Amino acid sequence: MNLILFTAEELGTHQHLTLKDHRFNHIRNIHRAKCGDFLRVGELNGLMGSGEIVAIDDTGVELAIELTDKPPAKIPLNIVLALPRPKMTRRIFRTVAELGVSELCVINSYKVEKSYWQSPSIHPESVNRYLVDGLQQAKDTVLPRVSFHSLFKPFVEDQLPAMCAGTNAFVAHPGIGQPAPRAGNEAITLAIGPEGGFTDYEVDKFIACGFTGIDLGSRILRVETAIPVLVSRLYNT
Amino acid sequence: MNLILFTAEELGTHQHLTLKDHRFNHIRNIHRAKCGDFLRVGELNGLMGSGEIVAIDDTGVELAIELTDKPPAKIPLNIVLALPRPKMTRRIFRTVAELGVSELCVINSYKVEKSYWQSPSIHPESVNRYLVDGLQQAKDTVLPRVSFHSLFKPFVEDQLPAMCAGTNAFVAHPGIGQPAPRAGNEAITLAIGPEGGFTDYEVDKFIACGFTGIDLGSRILRVETAIPVLVSRLYNT
Repeated sequence: MNLILFTAEELGTHQHLTLKDHRFNHIRNIHRAKCGDFLRVGELNGLMGSGEIVAIDDTGVELAIELTDKPPAKIPLNIVLALPRPKMTRRIFRTVAELGVSELCVINSYKVEKSYWQSPSIHPESVNRYLVDGLQQAKDTVLPRVSFHSLFKPFVEDQLPAMCAGTNAFVAHPGIGQPAPRAGNEAITLAIGPEGGFTDYEVDKFIACGFTGIDLGSRILRVETAIPVLVSRLYNT
Repeated sequence: MNLILFTAEELGTHQHLTLKDHRFNHIRNIHRAKCGDFLRVGELNGLMGSGEIVAIDDTGVELAIELTDKPPAKIPLNIVLALPRPKMTRRIFRTVAELGVSELCVINSYKVEKSYWQSPSIHPESVNRYLVDGLQQAKDTVLPRVSFHSLFKPFVEDQLPAMCAGTNAFVAHPGIGQPAPRAGNEAITLAIGPEGGFTDYEVDKFIACGFTGIDLGSRILRVETAIPVLVSRLYNT
């Protein structure tokens, strides 16, 4: 936790913040902070700054907050991702926030097991917690926009064309032949399949929507590895 | 598991392989394979090829093996990594193998807790299992060389100079200022610190050894995210 995030509602009058939850435990046990110490803090979807510890005991910590800095810029990237296995979800969502991806559209795909859509790991509170974890790691305050689309065909036919308009659109698919280009700082829509990949039908749907197929060579990477590799490759300017 | 790995000792006469362990379970439950099906297989540190299922029942599977293809090339990269927290070790080792990194030197650092060196996660059998996991994901057969160096100063003073001779050597350190360059296909030694980073003393030791400091901008990435990002950035040709 390189930044302690809080919501606007949590910030009391006189810019004082009182924490008694896992953030307090982290401040006490990991930072081993004491009165007078300054910590990096940020308001969720707002500014970042510093928090001076004005009181700390066994039950909580009180910080005097000063917000001065803008959060880092987001990468203008929208990842369209087939719903991962529940045990991968946390790490993938956290990584997406950590890397500064602007938007994540989680979609269905033939090889996504139906039961994944019932997993508690995609409940809004879980998703929010994973994203906040990633922001606190990367020292960012702004949540990526996340949406869920449980029907593939209506999504690619009715929503995707407007969503990817004006962006460079790529679908990552092993063996499709073309390596990932470098993007400078252009807006990109990047589709990433499930374990086992998109079906040919699904790849064709993306291509019909203007997407270009890209791959990462002969190595098949897990989704959680492919995401940082692709982000780094596309935005390596 | 995109490739089923086995050792030379496991391969019987007449190029037949019998599996009864977790690989058999994977073949039966995930691939749902039956007699006559072909699977991608590879001999550890050897060639890759195909395995035809010639018998399968509730207790095991027998494959007729034909080895024809070279494994993919490794990246000429030696990662010098501060020993991670035990719960991160599996994922990081797996990722290193998955990405095709040639060599991993795990070292001590001031911010590495002493207890980490007692963790079962760095026993040779555990390390081998994590690496094999990564190879089976990426369709590779060749294990990266892995070594452990539990004393920082003797390692950087006595071993590192010979190890990094003839390579471009970088130490990743947040805030050091210079972004990661692109390497083409040159040999690189890349030092990555623990959570919380190397100390100034440690960074100075690397720099005295000819390393250049690089960083990834204002975002502080977890080690498991920084590795694929750095590999992809350095070898994005």
